[in-house]
Amino acid sequence: MYQSLKERVLDANLQLPQYGLVTFTWGNVSEIDREKNVIAIKPSGVSYKDMTADDIVIVDLDGNRVEGQLNPSSDTATHIELYKAFLDIGGIVHTHSRNATIWAQAGMDIPALGTTHADYFYGDIPCTRMLTAEEIETEYEKNTGIVIIEEFQKRAITATALPGVIISGHAPFAWGKNAFDAVHNAVVLEEISAMAIGTRSLNQDIRVQKELLDKHYLRKHGKNAYYGQK
Amino acid sequence: MYQSLKERVLDANLQLPQYGLVTFTWGNVSEIDREKNVIAIKPSGVSYKDMTADDIVIVDLDGNRVEGQLNPSSDTATHIELYKAFLDIGGIVHTHSRNATIWAQAGMDIPALGTTHADYFYGDIPCTRMLTAEEIETEYEKNTGIVIIEEFQKRAITATALPGVIISGHAPFAWGKNAFDAVHNAVVLEEISAMAIGTRSLNQDIRVQKELLDKHYLRKHGKNAYYGQK
Amino acid sequence: MYQSLKERVLDANLQLPQYGLVTFTWGNVSEIDREKNVIAIKPSGVSYKDMTADDIVIVDLDGNRVEGQLNPSSDTATHIELYKAFLDIGGIVHTHSRNATIWAQAGMDIPALGTTHADYFYGDIPCTRMLTAEEIETEYEKNTGIVIIEEFQKRAITATALPGVIISGHAPFAWGKNAFDAVHNAVVLEEISAMAIGTRSLNQDIRVQKELLDKHYLRKHGKNAYYGQK
Amino acid sequence: MYQSLKERVLDANLQLPQYGLVTFTWGNVSEIDREKNVIAIKPSGVSYKDMTADDIVIVDLDGNRVEGQLNPSSDTATHIELYKAFLDIGGIVHTHSRNATIWAQAGMDIPALGTTHADYFYGDIPCTRMLTAEEIETEYEKNTGIVIIEEFQKRAITATALPGVIISGHAPFAWGKNAFDAVHNAVVLEEISAMAIGTRSLNQDIRVQKELLDKHYLRKHGKNAYYGQK
Repeated sequence: MYQSLKERVLDANLQLPQYGLVTFTWGNVSEIDREKNVIAIKPSGVSYKDMTADDIVIVDLDGNRVEGQLNPSSDTATHIELYKAFLDIGGIVHTHSRNATIWAQAGMDIPALGTTHADYFYGDIPCTRMLTAEEIETEYEKNTGIVIIEEFQKRAITATALPGVIISGHAPFAWGKNAFDAVHNAVVLEEISAMAIGTRSLNQDIRVQKELLDKHYLRKHGKNAYYGQK
Repeated sequence: MYQSLKERVLDANLQLPQYGLVTFTWGNVSEIDREKNVIAIKPSGVSYKDMTADDIVIVDLDGNRVEGQLNPSSDTATHIELYKAFLDIGGIVHTHSRNATIWAQAGMDIPALGTTHADYFYGDIPCTRMLTAEEIETEYEKNTGIVIIEEFQKRAITATALPGVIISGHAPFAWGKNAFDAVHNAVVLEEISAMAIGTRSLNQDIRVQKELLDKHYLRKHGKNAYYGQK
Repeated sequence: MYQSLKERVLDANLQLPQYGLVTFTWGNVSEIDREKNVIAIKPSGVSYKDMTADDIVIVDLDGNRVEGQLNPSSDTATHIELYKAFLDIGGIVHTHSRNATIWAQAGMDIPALGTTHADYFYGDIPCTRMLTAEEIETEYEKNTGIVIIEEFQKRAITATALPGVIISGHAPFAWGKNAFDAVHNAVVLEEISAMAIGTRSLNQDIRVQKELLDKHYLRKHGKNAYYGQK
Repeated sequence: MYQSLKERVLDANLQLPQYGLVTFTWGNVSEIDREKNVIAIKPSGVSYKDMTADDIVIVDLDGNRVEGQLNPSSDTATHIELYKAFLDIGGIVHTHSRNATIWAQAGMDIPALGTTHADYFYGDIPCTRMLTAEEIETEYEKNTGIVIIEEFQKRAITATALPGVIISGHAPFAWGKNAFDAVHNAVVLEEISAMAIGTRSLNQDIRVQKELLDKHYLRKHGKNAYYGQK
């Protein structure tokens, strides 16, 4: 019934190893069908090279399996929270890509240091607070989503302007208007994470100019965007 | 009408992903026809794997499109400024290659630290000053070119002896006698940027000897050059 | 007689260059047959691309060659000590993979800094003490095994919860329930070593939360594990 | 006349890009025929992908071309000095491989930090002194060789025990009993250079134990070597 959704999500998941974002099965992509309120997501712990569209699991927004034989990703509850809170997003990616994970492990926001960052992320990429012991022990994956949302609310930033986050001590999530756009943003997040590590090794204090951040973000994403073919 | 120019520029653009200099569409190569005063340049935001010679855009030195259906690269105005000021160059490359971009984000000149650098660049590779808020808000891409030219004039260096630059908070430009030579220099710029980051992690103060810089640059580029087959 | 064991060990050895863990012949994988008390191991100094199942050497737990024409890996005595002390393991890998070797050369434990580490290793990965001059001069490879075992006993940790170690001034060993599982853990060890180097460059003091370490390790390996398909 | 020597040297040169040691034409391999006192070496500035055995140049020990149409590598005079001083070596490689070049640019010996280093290099890998202005201006390439030899004499080390060197502000040379062995050592030099940079980022002071250096070097290269198949 959800064949084309499952095929899209399979293809988006297979892009993760192609872009060098995953080791083994350490990553998952989902996409939501906003009309039917179901999510297609990678099964838990299945190797990318063996995966077929039939392995993709369909769940509803309460996490109940609607279609598929396999267990959905153990991170499904995080995806669900994000889809419920961020109504403009259509796809989500979670990876442990090396350089974004380094920033998450350091427990530090990824600072906006240049136009590569500004072309996609309109400001520092937030690192969430640590989860409390209780949040970790009970409904950990759901609470991971809640802590992300809390961070965005506290900072008054939108999921559209900042299509990614890092979880303290853990790894990144990225999102976009669909599964492929989410993977695209996950690739960007990894690349700017690497650039930011190198930049900090040369210069501890520098920040991108506010005007440059505005210019680059808005020439691609603003009302008067003039980058690309329309 | 500009078929062979467009094919050269297509091929030079396709070298960027082959050399690992670009992620997605983050780069562009142009070449100028000095007789006809037109520039062939990559279209804006088009994927490398889908690009054909017909997609390459021909513009004149006022930025008017002469041939082609697509919008030219959003960086076209920077290319034009450079071609107008640096009369000895025939090709220009812009990328966000990782290590050169790290130096740009750090806002620091890439110091000449060894003979690999000296074989191509006759001195430190300049990092421009930051653009002012006004330069960013109005005619940003043109002003990027103007700031590069200003930097070369202020330092009394030539585009031939220093075939590349980094823009503060942004990324590198490189150039050469034609599009392929410009790509060649962009590859070198990326490699010496990586070497310079590593060198600075071991030794904060060292510089290449002036005599070694002279020797290596001049044995390849001087009047009595003896490197290569002529 | 041990044809299928030799083929498994050949295949596991061939995974080392596929995963980028070895330069030249700098690595070896073994697997034990616990019923027959024999070990299949890579021959010493043989190139991966020329190796066949017939080249894999079978030795008993005293290090005597039971089958095969070639000398077993010079590290065979280390493997034997580990199999004798760690009764739950079935496969062992030794490599000089770059980032894990960096930690070994630094003489420092690989600190648990995030969930990627916690998914596989339940705490810091121990760096052994240096061997004494006498331990190096006589029965060096056997003593390498003994020093590893001493470290695990002193710290009261199990080989199952910490399926890897680094030898001070040398390089890593990893293990698992069979040869392929050992290679899997060696890949993880290399990746988290790289992440830990980057994390330390940004933040000298941070550690993963104890609760997060518990959660991630136990959701994959505890009694109530819920990661994967069972 | 020197067909088989030229084919060996061609093949050894082609290994440089395969092992990731060169960008463009930045490297050269030679081999000496000690009976005929001629050297086969890569031509200057020729692309690896276009090179054939006929392009390999044969020169005598005074640098005169004996066979071949092309100019020999501009570094030929360095190779000749090394062959004349180090009588046990049969092949030489020069590259600008990234990590070894970083140490050369830093002007620092590559410290022996672990067994990977000790398996091939019996002690710190020397960084030469800087050449004087006069040595650079006149017979630069020959003087590069002389400065290497001076460093080995001053330190009382042999070319066999330390099959490589880095030139201050420049890049590495490695050698071996023939062209292929020299390439092998150049690969090792690059890998241990990378490991040493990472190790120094974690620990500024550590050195490998003298006993471990002895053990690993001598178990592969000593009178009673027991590594490999004889």
